[in-house]
Amino acid sequence: MTDLLIRNVRIVTGAGADAVIEGGVAVSGGIIEAVGKTPDRAQEVIDGQGMILAPGLVNTHCHAGDSLFRGLVENLPLEPWLQTVWKAEGAILNPETCRLGARLGFAELALGGVTSVIDMFWFPEQTVQAAAEVGLRVSCGGLFFDPSGMDGKTAADRPDDARAFFDRHPPSDFMRPGVFPHGAYTVGPDNLRLAAELAREHDAIFSIHASETAFERQDVLTRHGATPVRLLHELGALDERAVLAHCVHLDDEEIAILAQTGAAVAHNPLSNLKLASGFARIPDMLAAGVRVTLGTDGAISGNDLDMWLAMRLAATIHKAATGRADAVSTHEALRMATQAGAEAMGLGDRIGTIEVGKQADMILIDVSGPHAAPMFDPLTHLVYSAGRADVRHVFVAGEQIVRDRRLTRIDIAPTLEAVRALAPRIRAAIA
Amino acid sequence: MTDLLIRNVRIVTGAGADAVIEGGVAVSGGIIEAVGKTPDRAQEVIDGQGMILAPGLVNTHCHAGDSLFRGLVENLPLEPWLQTVWKAEGAILNPETCRLGARLGFAELALGGVTSVIDMFWFPEQTVQAAAEVGLRVSCGGLFFDPSGMDGKTAADRPDDARAFFDRHPPSDFMRPGVFPHGAYTVGPDNLRLAAELAREHDAIFSIHASETAFERQDVLTRHGATPVRLLHELGALDERAVLAHCVHLDDEEIAILAQTGAAVAHNPLSNLKLASGFARIPDMLAAGVRVTLGTDGAISGNDLDMWLAMRLAATIHKAATGRADAVSTHEALRMATQAGAEAMGLGDRIGTIEVGKQADMILIDVSGPHAAPMFDPLTHLVYSAGRADVRHVFVAGEQIVRDRRLTRIDIAPTLEAVRALAPRIRAAIA
Repeated sequence: MTDLLIRNVRIVTGAGADAVIEGGVAVSGGIIEAVGKTPDRAQEVIDGQGMILAPGLVNTHCHAGDSLFRGLVENLPLEPWLQTVWKAEGAILNPETCRLGARLGFAELALGGVTSVIDMFWFPEQTVQAAAEVGLRVSCGGLFFDPSGMDGKTAADRPDDARAFFDRHPPSDFMRPGVFPHGAYTVGPDNLRLAAELAREHDAIFSIHASETAFERQDVLTRHGATPVRLLHELGALDERAVLAHCVHLDDEEIAILAQTGAAVAHNPLSNLKLASGFARIPDMLAAGVRVTLGTDGAISGNDLDMWLAMRLAATIHKAATGRADAVSTHEALRMATQAGAEAMGLGDRIGTIEVGKQADMILIDVSGPHAAPMFDPLTHLVYSAGRADVRHVFVAGEQIVRDRRLTRIDIAPTLEAVRALAPRIRAAIA
Repeated sequence: MTDLLIRNVRIVTGAGADAVIEGGVAVSGGIIEAVGKTPDRAQEVIDGQGMILAPGLVNTHCHAGDSLFRGLVENLPLEPWLQTVWKAEGAILNPETCRLGARLGFAELALGGVTSVIDMFWFPEQTVQAAAEVGLRVSCGGLFFDPSGMDGKTAADRPDDARAFFDRHPPSDFMRPGVFPHGAYTVGPDNLRLAAELAREHDAIFSIHASETAFERQDVLTRHGATPVRLLHELGALDERAVLAHCVHLDDEEIAILAQTGAAVAHNPLSNLKLASGFARIPDMLAAGVRVTLGTDGAISGNDLDMWLAMRLAATIHKAATGRADAVSTHEALRMATQAGAEAMGLGDRIGTIEVGKQADMILIDVSGPHAAPMFDPLTHLVYSAGRADVRHVFVAGEQIVRDRRLTRIDIAPTLEAVRALAPRIRAAIA
């Protein structure tokens, strides 16, 4: 018998420009076995009346552990902001606090409808564990960072550290090991090249901050004679495994390089606004065929991990920045937050849309409130009106990880207690 | 005995740059009688543990009735968008549907923590009634619009219509009558001057769309030889009673005129983004001393009426637009959404902050979720992390209009049913 049937629901499949189906979704063995017309019975049946069913959201740039520092450093641009952040991180971070911060961040993500996340942070073993605790799919792995790291390691340690992570974590549908050089301004060309080689060797994600600020772009250009994107291209780091976070400051040629190489961009609109980094040229990237995905960045820059806000910003800020009210379409915004992210994680054939044969990463969004009435198009509702608090149920591979707005795998209360208890020490770290 | 005591709560008073008080708020006869240290007992006691108490939000530019058309017309710039909107409005709007739309919009506002609203719409009598049904303070009044209006009236009818509204609605703390010319591109100089005279005569709000788009600015300049702000100034419309919505396209002199005359600006960041209108020069206006307030605009342009999103956008988009990470401070953003709005409504001495002697317009925000941990500063939390769904209780003049996320005065279900039933007719109107 079918394991799970969600019936009587409006389904935004995410497959095709505006595919909305009324009916049900049937799941067996974690796999979607029917969409629309379904079997009548199942082990578990959920009535989807008053809800929209959509693909789980994919957050392609996050530092979940940084949630510990939410709201600590405010109203500074990236460079001085980073100096203060690093001071706090240096004083506080260890495997235990990284696990705590990652659990906090992943809990927030799951409750907000995120089912998969690319996460860059210290002690990635803890990231793996925290994602498993909450029930998210995750991509993480060895960091590359030339200055002395928060994990006490140095540039010379990074390659072996990254290799060891690959050895301990063979890729699965739930855990996508990768390499995570911090940026071309904090990692030298030798280690960047080596990280790219490791990614190719393991057919793994290569994710890096790139051209986030004009300052970074100029800094890399001055030091290495090439902008971050060109440098990464010269070093052989750009292919369909690459996920470049931010890319706020690009020229036409760099956009063409991204399109030609198949490298994905993780657009983080909220972080770019709040840190005054600028407006990424997302409409130009989409027109050029660049694979644009969506991220929240860390809660330390955006103050929360809200993919609905990211989606709404991606759909609106570029309209004002370009003066074109059709600059990013509703479908493009949803695609960035779902299918394109799944593809960037190397899971495009398995998740990202609601289609038969794919794994059942699904969210159910409550549309009973005043802000959901009337609703002429469910897709428009998801991008322009829905919010994190509307997410009622979340499934990953058919397993329900959020039920009626509560995590099913863990009780979050002790985590929140521990975070609050740690706060005075965090505040003291930058005093 | 004290009527109401909210104890054991963190209070963001909104008075002063970052006044946060731990303690209680006591209310009698709708008036705040103590903040911080309070009497021990009251008729009703609410434990504020796990919540922040803050001033009710003031939305200074809304068209609540337009909520009927939420999501109907997408991805168009203002001018062609308006043509389609007006077609739908013309086919659907009458006193009954305006009442329905206003009730829908005001329900959404109240549930999201708004306690006062300046609303411009057809059949303002219905707006008055709907606000009273939900329990909001409202400012509305006679529209001025030279083309044939959705109410079947013409330019010649407007002055008497506006006078009649003043006659029927003497000002009170809950109902602020005003005049609402639509814009300098839709109302000729004679009626604009007359509207301004009426506002002065009645010491009432004069609210108008002004310089929302570059097209509008040029259009008014071409037709009348002056930009909208200069024209309004020449016509005697700009003083401390004026609330100019949008003001996206201003030069330095226009900003100086607003500062000198004391006219307030209602900044609507989401609407300006989505309709590709541009970025208002909010940091320059604040620096010049212009009274900047915050609005949602209608749900037809922003798709919802979320003052938390408006506040977060006001605090972030100008950082990216100017390249300055301190462009709008946390305190400035909160002030726009509370005290400055109260002042624009002529109620600055009665509401807008949590202070002894003011009327008890208060909201209680749940901070028990992961996105509220840790919390180094409640003010930062309100501006950068809180959301509409965190609003748990809402009070207007001490009366609880939202209790545990539900309206107390009306059952919203029949309204939602009626709106959904109307939707096919709305869709057909623009087919």
